[in-house]
Amino acid sequence: MAPSRTSRHPSGASAADHVTLRRHNLSVVLRHLRGFGPASRARIAGVTGLNKATVSSLVADLIERGLVVEAEAERGAVGRPGQLVKLDGTRVCGMGAEVNVDYIAVLALGLDGEVVVDRRVPLPAARLSVDAVLKALADLVSASVAVVRSQGSHVVRLTVAVPGLARVDSGVIALAPNLGWTDVPVVERMRELLTGLSAPITLDNEANLAAIAASDEVRESGETGPDEVLLLTGAVGVGAGVVSAGRLLRGGHGFSGEVGHMPIGAADRTCGCGRLGCWETVVGLGRLLELAAAPDDAVHDPALDVVQRLAELTARAEAGDERTLEALEDVGLWLGIGASVLVNVLNPDVLVLGGYFAQMGPWLTDNVERELARRVIAPDAGGCRVVLSRLGFRAAVQGGAQIALDAVFSNPMLIGSVLDDVMTPTSLDSFGDSPRSPRMPSPVRSAR
Amino acid sequence: MAPSRTSRHPSGASAADHVTLRRHNLSVVLRHLRGFGPASRARIAGVTGLNKATVSSLVADLIERGLVVEAEAERGAVGRPGQLVKLDGTRVCGMGAEVNVDYIAVLALGLDGEVVVDRRVPLPAARLSVDAVLKALADLVSASVAVVRSQGSHVVRLTVAVPGLARVDSGVIALAPNLGWTDVPVVERMRELLTGLSAPITLDNEANLAAIAASDEVRESGETGPDEVLLLTGAVGVGAGVVSAGRLLRGGHGFSGEVGHMPIGAADRTCGCGRLGCWETVVGLGRLLELAAAPDDAVHDPALDVVQRLAELTARAEAGDERTLEALEDVGLWLGIGASVLVNVLNPDVLVLGGYFAQMGPWLTDNVERELARRVIAPDAGGCRVVLSRLGFRAAVQGGAQIALDAVFSNPMLIGSVLDDVMTPTSLDSFGDSPRSPRMPSPVRSAR
Repeated sequence: MAPSRTSRHPSGASAADHVTLRRHNLSVVLRHLRGFGPASRARIAGVTGLNKATVSSLVADLIERGLVVEAEAERGAVGRPGQLVKLDGTRVCGMGAEVNVDYIAVLALGLDGEVVVDRRVPLPAARLSVDAVLKALADLVSASVAVVRSQGSHVVRLTVAVPGLARVDSGVIALAPNLGWTDVPVVERMRELLTGLSAPITLDNEANLAAIAASDEVRESGETGPDEVLLLTGAVGVGAGVVSAGRLLRGGHGFSGEVGHMPIGAADRTCGCGRLGCWETVVGLGRLLELAAAPDDAVHDPALDVVQRLAELTARAEAGDERTLEALEDVGLWLGIGASVLVNVLNPDVLVLGGYFAQMGPWLTDNVERELARRVIAPDAGGCRVVLSRLGFRAAVQGGAQIALDAVFSNPMLIGSVLDDVMTPTSLDSFGDSPRSPRMPSPVRSAR
Repeated sequence: MAPSRTSRHPSGASAADHVTLRRHNLSVVLRHLRGFGPASRARIAGVTGLNKATVSSLVADLIERGLVVEAEAERGAVGRPGQLVKLDGTRVCGMGAEVNVDYIAVLALGLDGEVVVDRRVPLPAARLSVDAVLKALADLVSASVAVVRSQGSHVVRLTVAVPGLARVDSGVIALAPNLGWTDVPVVERMRELLTGLSAPITLDNEANLAAIAASDEVRESGETGPDEVLLLTGAVGVGAGVVSAGRLLRGGHGFSGEVGHMPIGAADRTCGCGRLGCWETVVGLGRLLELAAAPDDAVHDPALDVVQRLAELTARAEAGDERTLEALEDVGLWLGIGASVLVNVLNPDVLVLGGYFAQMGPWLTDNVERELARRVIAPDAGGCRVVLSRLGFRAAVQGGAQIALDAVFSNPMLIGSVLDDVMTPTSLDSFGDSPRSPRMPSPVRSAR
């Protein structure tokens, strides 16, 4: 027999297989309950193709870990009613936190997707030091973790969203022009500040996380989920996130979605990045406010936060204020011009407008759709629908909480049967690249 | 017991499992040989984790199907030399065919990746009728199939590339502005014309197929393959293709990569699509020729084909001709401006310049790299390298031939042990979306 240079110890391989198989099948059951809601063991067996004894054992295991709970009996079924099981939202939470130009926010979701904590605090982050901003964020996270714990639940993972170039592997923001941040080790600082939290902390780009939430939002609103979702989120800057076949596109170094600096604006306007003519100079919130209101107008009052400012603009638009409507007309036109570039490149099924684009959407959508129809080379704008997100400025923290929970859905064994905040970061490492597909994974079965 | 609304017949499920497992493992072995070259059975077992008896049985099966062949003994190994096996390039071929604005082309690859047929014929396709163009292409395909057969090999699948919006599912070109085509049922017509070929015929966008070939080209040239590849191919029009984590991004309806019509050119130039200011009006081959040579210059002679024209421009550039160099300077600048938009959006590891951009690359790359450095917001152009493809105008047919072969790599059972051209199209349907990942798939093993 020829020497095998990479042979494995047979018994070791066999043992690893068994754990891998169990983990995979626990994940299949848990994800089935997320995707389709409460179900009987028999139903889970039927849909996943696993046999009923295996499903019973897997469900017992998940109940033991506090991830699944018995629910009411199935109604309307013929014969003896089947006992249902469902996700247990009371024991573990995923948490998202966000720094943006004029606010910080935290959101915690139970495993069942219900909101456990939802807080947003105005903060002029661009005018404060990095340390002051991160301290404020850590305080908000700590208070939120306390709420989660007071309810008997535990945070399994925290995702921090920042509107900038995020190095996901090292937890460093390379550049966030609108915050004025360069090379900020966000995860390291948060780790130091959050001594009471031992759950893993990760960093991500705000628009990427918002795209994850938007993709789920779009899927939940329709019969069958679209495969290709493009999110454009508007605040001071403009960010994009793309979810393709359930997978977030990050690019080679995690720096994708930097659409705000496409050179398609007016060349006389200087961007926060220092360049001229960037797209966000004609579609960012600053431009809308400048067009909609004179410098001494109350809408510019620094005491107002972004939600109050948008509420005021909405009221004026609804009242037919001419200057406000003309400003929205102009921004909508430029939004459509830039969106058409992205739709030509990416051919999404759905373009989701998020952030302030969503709130002012009723006055922007017509122009966006008209420019897409004119400028997208594929017939019928390549089949792209324009929808408005209902997540408001909550999208990034919602997406952050969701991917925090994905770690558990991918590997339910992360959660021991005695819960605490202590988890092994290495066991989570493989999570980052796994697709967030709406399709159910196939269980691994032994071949007989 | 609760009624199971979706239960399957147990023995049916078990039988399907067995075939699925076998198919998967045959594919694992075949792809291992593609990825790593000739190997002993013991080596395959060691790397894939399959046991040696299983590997021997799988290899015997693949030899029976004409996909694998015994090779020379392994040299330098300790102990008795292991008999190697390798891909058999002599029995099946994948074929790519292409219509472009001024040529048609066909390329056939053996299973081992060796070129079996490589033909390109100048044809003024934009000035001929659709029927005349497809007839010429069918004739070139027929002649190429005859060459394949004369060598004892068989065409397993034909992929037709067209520079336009391809409806992959229905085989229809919705729009190809530079050919003047609208709603052309290419696959149906080719099926009618190619009565002697019963292999499946599929249609795809030229830049998408070129991106597949470029992605493999880049991977083969490096130590470890980059995950994110952006191809820009220049001819009369400009096309883009993106391969992300081994998967071609097609968008929701297959219309992605339409970058030629980004509104970043000079607004006084009318594009083939009828719009003003499209990018391809300042970087397409027409623009280069217009800038480089007066209307009465010999380089515009309609009798020249694109390769001859480029050879002439190359000679002038090498000789230091001022007008030619200035034209290349101008085109390179605009190429960099547009590329920076795409690099900001997609953050590729590698930007591959293909088509005429590759041939004239020595005079374009400096400007492209400078504009990327200036305009990409991520540090160091987001880590993006610029490379020139060596595939020339062969990229699309090469990619077409490769994905034709992928059908076999994904499902070796497509090929019976007695070879002929007849294959079941339905059994190929699942191929389109499967990732073309450089990473080896894991074999499915039973858990003991």
